[in-house]
This record gives sequence, C-alpha cells and structure tokens, in this order.
Amino acid sequence: MKHLLSAANLSRDDALQILDTAAQMHDVQRREVKKLPVLRGRTIVNLFFEDSTRTRSSFEIAGKWLSADVINVSAKGSSVSKGESLRDTAMTVAAMGVDGLVIRHHASGAPLQVTQWVDAMVVNAGDGTHEHPTQALLDAYTMQQRLGDLAGKRVAIVGDLTHSRVVRSNLILLRTLGADVTLVAPPTLMPSGIANWSAAEGFSYGYDFDEVLPDLDAVMMLRVQKERMSGGYFPTPREYTVGYGLTRDRLRALPDHAVICHPGPMNRGLEITADAADEARSLILDQVSAGVAVRMSVLYHLLGGAEA
Amino acid sequence: MKHLLSAANLSRDDALQILDTAAQMHDVQRREVKKLPVLRGRTIVNLFFEDSTRTRSSFEIAGKWLSADVINVSAKGSSVSKGESLRDTAMTVAAMGVDGLVIRHHASGAPLQVTQWVDAMVVNAGDGTHEHPTQALLDAYTMQQRLGDLAGKRVAIVGDLTHSRVVRSNLILLRTLGADVTLVAPPTLMPSGIANWSAAEGFSYGYDFDEVLPDLDAVMMLRVQKERMSGGYFPTPREYTVGYGLTRDRLRALPDHAVICHPGPMNRGLEITADAADEARSLILDQVSAGVAVRMSVLYHLLGGAEA
Amino acid sequence: MKHLLSAANLSRDDALQILDTAAQMHDVQRREVKKLPVLRGRTIVNLFFEDSTRTRSSFEIAGKWLSADVINVSAKGSSVSKGESLRDTAMTVAAMGVDGLVIRHHASGAPLQVTQWVDAMVVNAGDGTHEHPTQALLDAYTMQQRLGDLAGKRVAIVGDLTHSRVVRSNLILLRTLGADVTLVAPPTLMPSGIANWSAAEGFSYGYDFDEVLPDLDAVMMLRVQKERMSGGYFPTPREYTVGYGLTRDRLRALPDHAVICHPGPMNRGLEITADAADEARSLILDQVSAGVAVRMSVLYHLLGGAEA
Repeated sequence: MKHLLSAANLSRDDALQILDTAAQMHDVQRREVKKLPVLRGRTIVNLFFEDSTRTRSSFEIAGKWLSADVINVSAKGSSVSKGESLRDTAMTVAAMGVDGLVIRHHASGAPLQVTQWVDAMVVNAGDGTHEHPTQALLDAYTMQQRLGDLAGKRVAIVGDLTHSRVVRSNLILLRTLGADVTLVAPPTLMPSGIANWSAAEGFSYGYDFDEVLPDLDAVMMLRVQKERMSGGYFPTPREYTVGYGLTRDRLRALPDHAVICHPGPMNRGLEITADAADEARSLILDQVSAGVAVRMSVLYHLLGGAEA
Repeated sequence: MKHLLSAANLSRDDALQILDTAAQMHDVQRREVKKLPVLRGRTIVNLFFEDSTRTRSSFEIAGKWLSADVINVSAKGSSVSKGESLRDTAMTVAAMGVDGLVIRHHASGAPLQVTQWVDAMVVNAGDGTHEHPTQALLDAYTMQQRLGDLAGKRVAIVGDLTHSRVVRSNLILLRTLGADVTLVAPPTLMPSGIANWSAAEGFSYGYDFDEVLPDLDAVMMLRVQKERMSGGYFPTPREYTVGYGLTRDRLRALPDHAVICHPGPMNRGLEITADAADEARSLILDQVSAGVAVRMSVLYHLLGGAEA
Repeated sequence: MKHLLSAANLSRDDALQILDTAAQMHDVQRREVKKLPVLRGRTIVNLFFEDSTRTRSSFEIAGKWLSADVINVSAKGSSVSKGESLRDTAMTVAAMGVDGLVIRHHASGAPLQVTQWVDAMVVNAGDGTHEHPTQALLDAYTMQQRLGDLAGKRVAIVGDLTHSRVVRSNLILLRTLGADVTLVAPPTLMPSGIANWSAAEGFSYGYDFDEVLPDLDAVMMLRVQKERMSGGYFPTPREYTVGYGLTRDRLRALPDHAVICHPGPMNRGLEITADAADEARSLILDQVSAGVAVRMSVLYHLLGGAEA
C-alpha cells in the first residue's frame, strides 16, 4: 500500500494491522514523552484546500510525534487563489522534496488524481462528500477498543448521509471488518440509489431509527451539515431531532453495552442531545484521542517502510 | 500551581520564582544555541480565538526553545465557525493528548472555564478585557531588571483602562510585589466603580497625569484600543495626546531614573511620542525580549514538573 | 555578506559559492534523511506581509532541514492590521531573539529598511515589483545544472516585465554570472527607461520574441500578473499568447538544447502552453526543487557562520 485514498484500499489484514499499530501508538501517547524517532528526516505537508482545524491538527500532532517535519499549506492565500490548477499545486509542493501529502479537498477524487502526478505518498484527509478513510479507521479503532472484534457487531450510521464524507468510508471499512451495518436517514437525506447500493455492498438501510435502536452494538450519529444544505425538502431542526436525533428517550432504548460515536463537531440539541454526548457510553472524545494514534499508524505504515 | 489564569494565582513567592527562572532563561536566549531539552516530548497548543501574532509568536518561540512541540490552532477556519462550543473545542483539542493549552479568547473567563473541562495545563494568553498574566509578568521582569526590587517603587498605569486586558493583571502583580500603583485615565476611560476598587485593592487613581509624573519610578502607557471604542464621550485623538500622551514635555518632567513601558503595538503620536518610544529609558523592546523568557519560565514551571 | 536583499549583493564568487553549496544541499535532499544539524538552536521567522505559500513553504522546509526553528508570521491578523508600522513590527519580531528574518513585503525596499532597525539577518523573499534574489539564484542553479557554466549563454526573459519581481534579480545575477540577457515584452509591459537601463547594465531588449528565439540557450517565461494589471493598453489574453506566449510553434523554433523556465504559478494557455510546461526541456519543477536547496544554502551562509 503506497497511498490511503479510500477505505477500499484496505484489506482486512491491512486494516487490522493499522489498528494494531495504532494501539501501540496509543500506548506511547499516554507516556510522558510521546515522541518516536521513526519518521525523523521525513517531511509531510498538510495540503488543505478546505479548512478543517480538527483534522489538520490531528495529522500535525501525529506527524510531529513520529519526529517528522510537518508543513501546513492552506489553499487560502496560496497560488490556488491565483488560479493555479490542482495539478500544478500538487506537483509544486511535491517537487520541494516532501515525502507525504495529506490532502483535504472539496472535490471528490482530488487525492486520487494527485497520486497520478506525484511520487509522494498521499493520504486522503477528506475529499468532498466522498471519503475520509482515517476517520473510518479511528471510528473502528474506538469501537473495537470497547466492543472487541467488530465481526458480527451491529452498527447503525444515522443522519445526514447525503452530505457526509464519513459514511462511505465507514461503511466500507466496517464491512471489511465483518460488522453488520444499517444506514438510517430521513428520506430526503438518504443517498439516491440506496436500494442498489445496499444490495451490492451487503448492508441494510431504513428510515425508522427507533426500529433499529434496540438491537445495536454501536450507533454513529452524523453531523448535520447545515452549511452544505440548500433548499429542498430538508426537515426542520425540530423535525430532525424528533425523527433522527439521539434523544433521551432513544438513549433509554439503546442497549446498555452499546456505544455512541460522532465524528464531531457536534450540533448539540440537533442530532445529539447533551446527555448523549456526555454519558459514559459516548466515545466521542475517545475518537479524537484515537485519531492521533490511528494517523500515527497510517503515516508510519506508509512512510516508515524503509526503517521498518 | 497547575494553571496560570490570573495574576492573582501567583503568591509573592510564586511570582519571584517565575521571574528568577525567567532571568536564567533570558541568559540561555542570549547564547548561540538557545534550546533547552526540558519539555521534549511535551505538546503545547496555542488555541487562539482572537488574532494576536505578537503573543502567539512569543509563546510559540518559548515552547520551541524548551523543545516542546507547538501546534497553532486559530479559531478562524476552525469548528468554532461551524458553531461548536468553547467546551467542545477545548475538550477536542485536549483529547488529542496535548499537555498544555495557551488560550486567547474574546470572552473574559474563558480560560478558567476550560480548566473545568480538561486535564491539560491552561495559560491565559488574554481573555477579553479581563487579564493577561504573562504580560504582567514580563512587565514586572523588565522593570525589575532596571529598577531592582519593585517593593515600594511607584508605578503609574496610564490610558485606556477600560478596554485594556493588561491593567488588571499588572495591578494585581505589582501589588503582590509591593509596588505603589496609580491608575491614570480620562474620566470616560476610567473603569466604573474605581473608588471602591482602589480602596479594596490598595492603589490610588487620578485624572491628572502631570501631577503624578514627577514622582514615578516607572510609567506604563497603555495602547488606545481604537478598534474597541464605539461612540460615547471618548476624547478626540488630539485631546487624548494633550491630556494623557507621553509627550516631550512630559518626558522632561519624568525623573531621569524612571523607565517607560508599553505593551505594544504602539500608536506612535497618540498615547506615546516617537521620542518617548525610542529613548534610552524606554523598555519597550526589552519587554518583547523578556516576553519569551517569561513564557519559557511559565511553561517550564507548569509543564516541566516531572523533570524538575 | 550579512543580508541578502538584492542580487546585486552577490559578487561572482559569492554567487558561485552559494550555488556550489546548494548543489551539496541538493544531494542531501535526495537522501532518506534530509536533515542537517547546522542551524540547530537558530530561529528563523518568515515575516510575510503578502501571501506566498510557495515561497513561504520553500523557506520553511529549507530552515527545518537545517534543523532551525521556523516561525511563520503572517501580516494578516497581525498588529499590522492594527496600524503598527513596519519598523515596530520588525523590531518587535527581532526583539524576541530571532536570528533571521525572511521578509516578503508589497513595498519595494522594505527588507532593506528593516536591516537598518534590527540586528538579525534579513533575506528578501520578494519586495513589491523590485527584487526576489533567491528566485534568481534558483533559476541560475537550475539552468547551470543543465547548461553548465552560464558565462556566454544566451537567456531571454519574456513577458510581463513591468509587474515582475523576478526580472530585475534575474537580470543582475545572470549578468554577474556572465550570461547574455535579452528582455522581451510587448511595448505596454516594457519598463519605462529601458533604453538607458539596457545601455547601463549591458543587456539587450526587444519586442519580437520570434526573432530572438532561435539563438537561445534558455528562455524564462514570466507569469502574467493579471491581478496587478489595471486598465491601460494591455493586450488581450489572445493577443498576448499570439505575440509572447511559448506556443507549440515557438517550441519548434527553440533550439533542442535550450531549456524553459517559469517562476510559477503558471497561467497555462496564456504565457505558456501545456505542451511547453510539461516537455523535457522544461525545468519548471526542477526550479521548485532547487528552490529548497538554494534557500538552504543561503540560510547556511548567512546564519551558519559560527559553526562553519
């Protein structure tokens, strides 16, 4: 594996190996001195065409804890605003001699395109509404830490499926790891072609959150991407919460052993109540913590080969 | 001491110890190789909800010279602009495993609130018009280097007291160190309730700069926060300079041994003339230099415990 | 040499020495571990009053590969936006104890002014339409790698000469290295006083690109600075390409051994066709790669003296 563009790049063995290394990295994180020398002398550029402080910081910390040099390049104020193409921007950054590019882009497929132009390792840190594979890895890591082997576990991904870059990567990775996945959304936020997609990929879907709730091992609440919505038949916030929010009533219907995930940032009171966000079954901060460990693992597996 | 939120967190002994360590750090700064290994493996996030290049750079340099990893997170372009709460932002950043948060926020009390939610060490790098304790420490350090022990020294803080985040921290710390403090401002920029405040805290105040000038050991000119002013009875710039600017005439009235401080950035010609800013008694650049040393000292005392 | 403000600061010996060191740095770049310890403990600030991700990243990588601490300070969000003068900004940053300032400014001469106020080493990373000496060095390095000694080589600099910060530095350095230089531009983009300038400096100029093309060893295409243009007699994009673009027809007229440079970012289809940008004679990505090596060399020569 040279790049991480999609959760589909990962075989079951690849995924388990990355999660296993992440667990070792997580142990290092808990120590006083967190740094490992494994990527010393390597240079990683966070090439972000869209703002995402959370993801950018997580990759920056991961790189630095592996002793790499990390350079942040924001497309704001870059040559991009002078009309330079993605191709020229990526080739220019790569030509400086960097070893890895972590790319966030508003267009689906942009990181894949970049791999055709540069020799550097590329990690997709979110491309449009397409994929965000390290998010899927950190979600899987977090659930696995609490639930054990994910094979056979029942996971629902709930909410704004149309505008999420998280759902596709999670769906693919969870299926790779053997979990039973159900997608739940209001009709206007269910991806078109869901019937064919679910048949092809082997997952279920539905419109009734309450129906699936009592049988779950994990529920992943998606952020309502208010800023991506425009017009249409979207429910009002109140309707959304009533139908698809993780409310107090639904918390009671969720099995005690089941865990709650959310990729953040949360709209408290919209897709998730404050109660749900803060209770013991909620792994939301564990996800953030795991994010650094998983990204250390990914960077190590992609860049650390020569030393390994 | 786990956090530095207010100058009131510092006993006289604490303050003197931080200033003493700062003097040692200052010696290190003057060498060819400025780095100390004491915070190697520690990670500090500069979490700035307001821009302040000056303060952010000073903390970044201080952290790096102690060999910490320093990550800059600006609220612009962060999840904050997606409506995430201070609580979720702070908890998310802390969950990545960082050891310290240096927080600048437009709301008074924000850094204190953060300490209730996270385990990481918190330094207040300016909260609204409330406090800016490392500024007070660097001011005290700079004056002490020139004037010796500040006990009994007469210090006036002059200018836009209402909009300054510097005045409260300086007042508290200078009183802790035994200095005699006088606040001077035009009536419209004097904090309300000044009579009770001065009685409770043991400082004097007045409206006539020329009256206090001849007896001073140090004068701290505050920046006129033009961008924070709105309507009201504020004097015109010309009136301000005539009444409260450090003009050439006032320079002559200031004792020869007295020193001049200003937290920067200066409005030359408004609260301070170019002559005053650049003369030998002016410690304005010494303050900047001391800022790095003092912040190294604070970070070391808060984070370096295990090694100390 | 204490600063690098203009290509005119470099004697032929200085220039050759910097290029020679750059070649050694370039070798280091190609290795697994790229870092050299020569500037460990030194601190460099990239003080950018104008955005330039490309130049800023190149200097940041160069500094980090020499083990320096690199701090990025953007004038956006800095005290500059509060009306602080260049002088106070530069003196403040320098007072923090930094060893070097890499300055990008919209005003010609700003970096020179800064040297009058601070002790730190200053590198001009582009001042208005005036100079950009490290760009000239990387251009010379790149051409020399392919063409050998530049003495007697025929180089044309073609395009928007009026708005380019690259042309003056390149002209000076190429003349220092003994190359024959011709400037080519449409009449409205030819600098005023070109006749006197060319006589004084010993270069030729003309308006007919096709006339000079068959005799060249190297052609440097300049970026059309669309954002700097306003009104006037500027040709339309179509007219520009017909008269001064490096088109397929002109590629055929260019000698086989001749090389093509462009400082980037390119306006593909305007001043250069995609064919020209991507063909083997094009050194555009080599220039980017050389940029890091040349800047490592410059920083080493200016800051590494004590270790050397």
